[in-house]
This record gives sequence, C-alpha cells and structure tokens, in this order.
Amino acid sequence: MSNLNIVYVYSKMPNLTSELKLCLPTVQFHNVESDAELKKAEVIVADYDLMIPNMYNLQNLKWMQGTWAGLDLLTPHINKPLPFILTRFSNHRFGQIMAEYIITHITIIERDLLKVFANQQQKLWSRDGNIFHYRSFSDLSIGIMGLGSIGEWIARCFSMLGAKIIGYGRKPSPNQQMDFISPNSYYTKSNINNFLSNCDYIINTLPSTPETAGLLNGDVLKSCADRKTVLINVARGSIINENDLICALENGWLSHAVLDVFETEPLPKDSRLWATKQVSITPHVSAISRTKHVAEHFKDNWNLYVNNLPLLAVYSFDKGY
Amino acid sequence: MSNLNIVYVYSKMPNLTSELKLCLPTVQFHNVESDAELKKAEVIVADYDLMIPNMYNLQNLKWMQGTWAGLDLLTPHINKPLPFILTRFSNHRFGQIMAEYIITHITIIERDLLKVFANQQQKLWSRDGNIFHYRSFSDLSIGIMGLGSIGEWIARCFSMLGAKIIGYGRKPSPNQQMDFISPNSYYTKSNINNFLSNCDYIINTLPSTPETAGLLNGDVLKSCADRKTVLINVARGSIINENDLICALENGWLSHAVLDVFETEPLPKDSRLWATKQVSITPHVSAISRTKHVAEHFKDNWNLYVNNLPLLAVYSFDKGY
Repeated sequence: MSNLNIVYVYSKMPNLTSELKLCLPTVQFHNVESDAELKKAEVIVADYDLMIPNMYNLQNLKWMQGTWAGLDLLTPHINKPLPFILTRFSNHRFGQIMAEYIITHITIIERDLLKVFANQQQKLWSRDGNIFHYRSFSDLSIGIMGLGSIGEWIARCFSMLGAKIIGYGRKPSPNQQMDFISPNSYYTKSNINNFLSNCDYIINTLPSTPETAGLLNGDVLKSCADRKTVLINVARGSIINENDLICALENGWLSHAVLDVFETEPLPKDSRLWATKQVSITPHVSAISRTKHVAEHFKDNWNLYVNNLPLLAVYSFDKGY
Repeated sequence: MSNLNIVYVYSKMPNLTSELKLCLPTVQFHNVESDAELKKAEVIVADYDLMIPNMYNLQNLKWMQGTWAGLDLLTPHINKPLPFILTRFSNHRFGQIMAEYIITHITIIERDLLKVFANQQQKLWSRDGNIFHYRSFSDLSIGIMGLGSIGEWIARCFSMLGAKIIGYGRKPSPNQQMDFISPNSYYTKSNINNFLSNCDYIINTLPSTPETAGLLNGDVLKSCADRKTVLINVARGSIINENDLICALENGWLSHAVLDVFETEPLPKDSRLWATKQVSITPHVSAISRTKHVAEHFKDNWNLYVNNLPLLAVYSFDKGY
C-alpha cells in the first residue's frame, strides 16, 4: 500500500505541520515520533540536522524536502549519490528577506546613517559629507555572486531600485528570464578578476561547495582596489578565510565588509573581525526560514511531484548543492 | 522670432546645464545671467526659490520646469492662476531613492539593528528578541499616503519585497496601473480612520497643501493604537504638528516615528522631538534631486512639449500642487 498521501514531518520548526495542512488541506501530514515511523516515510519534510544519521538507511524514502536553504551541515555526510530525491528550501521569499538586509546595510554605509543617529543624540542637524552627498542604488554597480533563486530575487529587487546588476555564476550565461543582466555584465570563474573590478558592492549568495570554498582567498580581492568595493556575505563563511579578509580591508582593497556568516559560528570572542574597522557583524540573521514559506515551497514541489514533473531546487551530488 | 530652441537655465544645481546638453544635444541651453535674459525666456528650467520674485512678470514665459519635487516654497507666492505652465520635478528615480531610505529605516526598527551594532562593540553574538524573530516586508501592511509618481514607485518597491500595500489618495480609486493595490485596500479622506487602523507602517508622501496640512493632528492617530503603527514622514512636516505627534508616541498610538521633514527646518535645538524616545531624526535627506535625473525628466517633458502633448507633473492652482 502506497504512503503517497501521508507526508511525514521531521522538524523542529514551530507549527510546520499546521502550516503545511493550511497549504495542502487534502494531504495528510504526520509528525515523526519514532524510528519505525521514519522508516515508513515515502515523502518527508525534514530538518537537515535531524536527518544526518538517516541518509542511507530509509528504504521507502523517495523524496525529502529540506527546511533550510544551506545544505552544508548535511553534505559532509553524503559520500555517494543519495537513494532518494533531496530538495532544498528555496522560496523567493527568502531572497526578498535577504534583499531587505542588504539594501539596509548598503544604505547605512552610503548615507553615513550611524553618524546621523549620533548627531541626533547631540541635537545636531548636519548634512556634512555623505549624509547629503550620498550615492543611491541608481549610482551603484552591484555584483551578485550566485544566481540561483535567492540571488536572482536579490538582483530583481536591486534592479527595481535602479542599480546596475553584474552577475557571477557557474553557468556560461545567465538564465533567459534574468533580463536585468546584460550579456556583457555576466562573469564566471575564468574571469572573476574582471567581475570584481567592476563592482561597487559584491554580494555573496554562493552555496558552500568545494568549488566556492576559498574562492576569494589570497590576493584575489586586489581587483577591488580601484573601486574600494564593499563585500556583503550572506551565504557562507567558507568563501574567504578571516585573515585574508582582514588583509583585504587593511590594504584598502575593500572599504567595508558586512558579514552575516563566518567560518565558525557563533563567531568566537577572540576573532579579530569583531574589532576590525569597517566591519559590520550580524549573527547569521540576514534571512530566516519562515514556517509559512517552507510550507508554500513544499506545496509548489508537491504539485510537481504528484504530476511526475521535475522538482524545484533539487540537490545534485555532482554540483555539491 | 521664437525662442523655442533656446531653453534658459536658472538654477544653483551643479552641472545642470551640461547634464541637460547631454540629454538633449540638439537643444541650446543658456544660463540666465541677468534680468533681461530672464525676460526673454519662453522655456526655463529653474529652482523655485530663484523664481519667487518672477512668477507674474515674465511676459514671454510659456513653460517653467522646476528642479525640486516640493513646491511649498513657491506656493505662498501664487495667489492666482499662473500665466504659464509650471511642472514639478517628479522622476521615478526620486521615488526609488526615497524607497531605499524607507526600507532601511523599517529594517533597522524591525530587526533591532542598532542593538546588533551595539552588541558588536561588546563582541557579543546574540540573537535575542527581534534580532532573530523579526518581521520581514512579507509580514507587513504598509500604507502609502499619496500615490503620485513618487508614492507609486515607493509602493512598487515595497510590493517587490512582498509587503501588502494599502493606498491613501485624493482620487476615488487608484490608477489602473497600480495593480499592487487591491480596490479594498484603498482609502480617501472620508475613511482615513480605517486606513490608519490597517497599517503597520504609514509612509507620508503627500505634498503640503491646505488639504493635507494638519491631516494627522489631534487624536486622528488613535486609530493606530491596536497595531502600534510606525509613522515615516518623507514629504512635509505640515501634516502633523509637533505636540500632537509627541502625544501620539507618548500615548502608544504610534510605536515609532521616522522623521525626515519638520514644521521648521533645520529642526530647532529646543524641539522636544530630538530627545523623544522612539523618534529617528534625519536632516531632510531621504531623497535629493539629482542633476542627472532632473535633466532626464526635462527631456521627457521636452519631447511632450514640442509635440504639443500634455506635460508630466503639471502644477494645478486648484489642487495646490
């Protein structure tokens, strides 16, 4: 007897099962309470950390929908192709929420907003420096590293604000629907230096894979020296090691770094980053998986699944994400 | 002999004439150097303050393109219909730049970002309170007061980020192109209380006119008490007097006010607003007229003018803006 109409839920996300029921009222959702139940599952919505011990021992599992965007907790435990389809959470809402974070940090920097708040404490009306003479998005070239559904949405939001979008991706050219990237504003690993030298801001949304780890290490960021680029990292800390990042700031290749992710999290007390000038640190909060959005994403994938259509955000063993 | 192909420029904006020449290379632009030249002008691009003494004494003037969005410096000097067409600066770029400002202040509030920056000073990795459990734009209902070209663009940007848009305007229904406002999310003066009670944020973009002056005075903002709305004023200070605004904050009707404009500017040292809790003060910088954008806007209007088509952002004596 097929379990197709029972979807198992194995997650610590609050209210996930009830949100799933709201999205798909005709489907039965069942919280996993025991290993025996887990073994019955044909379709499961699950947190990656809970699934680590179970990646190769669930005989009935055909499809697992993950609840987070980043797979890097799980990938060290994947040493051969998976016996089921694994899909990441990758709702466009996630890109929207990251876009808010990035727009905000860019504006704080460009308009010297912390100075404005300090002026208020002194009852000082001042339009000195960047407070009045600021760059707006329509003056900026913003490079997006990684143009999956998250990077794409971030780029769409910036484009709406008038920024020039510069793309960096794995594919030889951007997807057709990305009409906001002109063909001569798209780069890959072979011409990463040209990419870096053309951006006022670089936004990293790349997943952590062997291909992206250390991508900005060494003196790669020297290409940013002319524009004194700002780096905003909302994806994974592995793209650049701490010492090389601090070196890029001290050399003036980067004028600022906004960091939401780190090689080790929480960022250790003895990290030099805490007190490096021109670094903004936030505790991995640029976007949070929302229960409602995970449920919406599962609904989209479910409708594809029951119609035997290709699913969204499928993990590839070869690509590593 | 017609002066149609000489456009006079009377402005303190840096490089305006050269930007205009870049936009319209076949048109002659001439900086006004004397009263005699001013009197020759048939078409002029001018700052409002410079034009105050000249509103009714330029016999040849057919069209004046202003360089700012807000006309309120000029309107006290307009006591009868003007003998020429007056157009405001109203480029969509201006809406984009204001949108950046508003998105940033909303995100700072929702995500407790000043606390995050303070934590960094103490090398503290904390996700307490709103730092992790924040509302994103997709959780917010944002009311836009004033749906001219600036308000419309602000609304478009917020809609892109997933916010629910609630409109408030003078017309009985929103323009057709505003597909991001549903008919039951649009309000006018007759039901302003319903508008106010449905918004998490209220963004004021209304021009200063006799109709909008004092619109939020008294206890009107009591309607915000349930949602503890945040007011963001990027238009003109005249919409609410200082005492009534402080009262609305102290009564908890509003939970915060972000103010870029004031009844008197610069905001006087003795204003109680400086030190009122939950008030953010910026020195009238939410958007700045950019020379390039003024030139682009003039180009659009020029192309309409030479073809005898209706111009954009025409001042109306009856509406007062």
